[in-house]
Amino acid sequence: MEIHRFNPPIRTLMGPGPSDVHPRILEALSRPTIGHLDPHFVALMEEVKTLLQYAFQTDNALTMPVSAPGSAGMETCFVNLVEPGDEVIVCQNGVFGGRMKENVERCGGIPVMVEDPWGRAVDPQKLEDALKANPDAGVVAFVHAETSTGAQSDVKTLVGLAHKHDCLTIVDAVTSLGGTPVKVDVWGVDAIYSGTQKCLSCVPGLSPVSFNERAQEKIRDRKTKVQSWFMDLNLVMGYWGSGATRSYHHTAPVNTLYGLHEALLMLKEEGLENAWNRHQRNHLALRAGLEHLGMELIVPEDERLPQLNAVSIPEGVDDARVRGRLLTEYNLEIGAGLGALAGKVWRIGLMGHASRAENILLCVGALGAVLSDMGISVNTGEALSGVQKALQG
Amino acid sequence: MEIHRFNPPIRTLMGPGPSDVHPRILEALSRPTIGHLDPHFVALMEEVKTLLQYAFQTDNALTMPVSAPGSAGMETCFVNLVEPGDEVIVCQNGVFGGRMKENVERCGGIPVMVEDPWGRAVDPQKLEDALKANPDAGVVAFVHAETSTGAQSDVKTLVGLAHKHDCLTIVDAVTSLGGTPVKVDVWGVDAIYSGTQKCLSCVPGLSPVSFNERAQEKIRDRKTKVQSWFMDLNLVMGYWGSGATRSYHHTAPVNTLYGLHEALLMLKEEGLENAWNRHQRNHLALRAGLEHLGMELIVPEDERLPQLNAVSIPEGVDDARVRGRLLTEYNLEIGAGLGALAGKVWRIGLMGHASRAENILLCVGALGAVLSDMGISVNTGEALSGVQKALQG
Repeated sequence: MEIHRFNPPIRTLMGPGPSDVHPRILEALSRPTIGHLDPHFVALMEEVKTLLQYAFQTDNALTMPVSAPGSAGMETCFVNLVEPGDEVIVCQNGVFGGRMKENVERCGGIPVMVEDPWGRAVDPQKLEDALKANPDAGVVAFVHAETSTGAQSDVKTLVGLAHKHDCLTIVDAVTSLGGTPVKVDVWGVDAIYSGTQKCLSCVPGLSPVSFNERAQEKIRDRKTKVQSWFMDLNLVMGYWGSGATRSYHHTAPVNTLYGLHEALLMLKEEGLENAWNRHQRNHLALRAGLEHLGMELIVPEDERLPQLNAVSIPEGVDDARVRGRLLTEYNLEIGAGLGALAGKVWRIGLMGHASRAENILLCVGALGAVLSDMGISVNTGEALSGVQKALQG
Repeated sequence: MEIHRFNPPIRTLMGPGPSDVHPRILEALSRPTIGHLDPHFVALMEEVKTLLQYAFQTDNALTMPVSAPGSAGMETCFVNLVEPGDEVIVCQNGVFGGRMKENVERCGGIPVMVEDPWGRAVDPQKLEDALKANPDAGVVAFVHAETSTGAQSDVKTLVGLAHKHDCLTIVDAVTSLGGTPVKVDVWGVDAIYSGTQKCLSCVPGLSPVSFNERAQEKIRDRKTKVQSWFMDLNLVMGYWGSGATRSYHHTAPVNTLYGLHEALLMLKEEGLENAWNRHQRNHLALRAGLEHLGMELIVPEDERLPQLNAVSIPEGVDDARVRGRLLTEYNLEIGAGLGALAGKVWRIGLMGHASRAENILLCVGALGAVLSDMGISVNTGEALSGVQKALQG
């Protein structure tokens, strides 16, 4: 096999992530590597922690990026907070609730599943019923922003119910952080994890997490050792802790952390609320365009995520063919449906740096052009005008 | 806290890793991000697998980078190959054998420790005795290149003994891959893991692993599920597998993989044997310089790693002060001793792109200058001549 330098094509990334990475962040990745024990790197780690506290809206001291992708962040929460025999209520309304169940089982825990339809928020009433029916449960886990469907759940209400029944909470904020309000302290979330490649617009490979004092207490009081050495927070805390307590654990992914630092700095410069508002405004513009093209968002209006738009594929349209043409003809990536929604929806992301007016116009225009070329009757001009009006509104 | 753009200092990295990253690799990191399901990315993954097979000298189909640092590569080997109740013989001659023990215990396995002095290779006789005394053991684990001491063990002999007693082998090649011969197929290694930030001169964050057919069979025949979802090779294989079998697992660290691809391409361009020879030649030159400065390598000559040189700190010299001055005055990083060797040795790495004549001259010159300035009598000029002579071979 003849192997040459890899020259990636220049894509517009409007799938479920990774999203478009800002050039400032790409440039940050290529700054010279320094040692993971270098005083300058230790200072960078402190700044990353501070910036993550801002992004998560928390004062939690234990706030840091796990040195691996979001699914390792999920696993970090479960292996630290679940011990063999523990009952864990998992609310599932998409793919990632299913992964939570897998995690509980692999920790030796007993998952109690609360099922909601794919494309809907988690129903607080069902959670309350489950809490009443399972008084021994100690943890409630759910997904804030279901990347597989575009549904957003009401974290504050769900956490409130869990606490009323003395349960800790684990919240998946992989797709929400930076794109829609995440308020760890105000909502009282005990453990939360996210990803870098969604609304933070950084490259994939890190998973920001945050744990409050109550979660840390549970970890300190464990009867058994955490089953993962790599993810054991008792050890990771020693590494990401401040000053004298810092001890070697693993070699941090230095350059990816340069990227995360730059991404979080950009979020701070824009301001969290401005970022949330931008995601919402652009979501409405995309929605206007898609509706003019005759497509419908599958999630009810008050449960929609602005950054991840699942639209039903028009009748008789070849899913893979359209996505393939968007990619080859316009270098535009949108996402396929996952699991139960495979072949039925497209997932269009407007995350972080990808949440821009020009991307919406490209997406609606390209979809209109390709569908039209495939014999579907659509009025692309009207759709683009709809986008334009919504952006001004 | 006022936070600004992070501008790393320009260091020369001659510690235990990360090593100097070549500008070609830094540039690769900053190429535009594409989706982890993009056909171009899938092609990149195939090339990375092929290049890793070359680096490991193996035809193993299951050869790929784990999406996390070396310690997660270690854990991937253990959680997949060790089940509760399994006896595992761990040969320990430094820090990382101790981490292996932790891994065995956290998998519910029973570690049988074979201890050798820090700074020495693993003694085959002791392993053979342990194999005879523990006929139920099913796995033997040891470190090829102990990063904490600079000692190199005889993989071929140790694997041969393990196989004679029907044990699988797990080998830590974090510091050896690319710097000193690693011959997975010829030696018959069953499972091996490495890191990217040592002799591959890539950034930290990935852990190349390889498993032979016998190891895969053991994984397929497990009675219990792998305790980690993120590291379960049954799932990861589906993601890194070829063609039709590929299924979504996690979001790969796209840009770091650009870096690894470029690093492996550079290794192929140089040629593995040439890289090994370069590491050996430069090791001899560094050794000449250090000996002229009155410092001794702590590992016996025939057990020394060329890429990681542990030297005893001269009597009466303040360890931290010297390293601090090298860093602040010459931007030169060398490593401290770990564990039992803390305060007693310096660890000087000549890994990958850092294994260059100019680095040796800088290191010997700077050490000489700083020691001399601290009142230690050394002949730096003679030491540099020694380096020069050794380089000319």
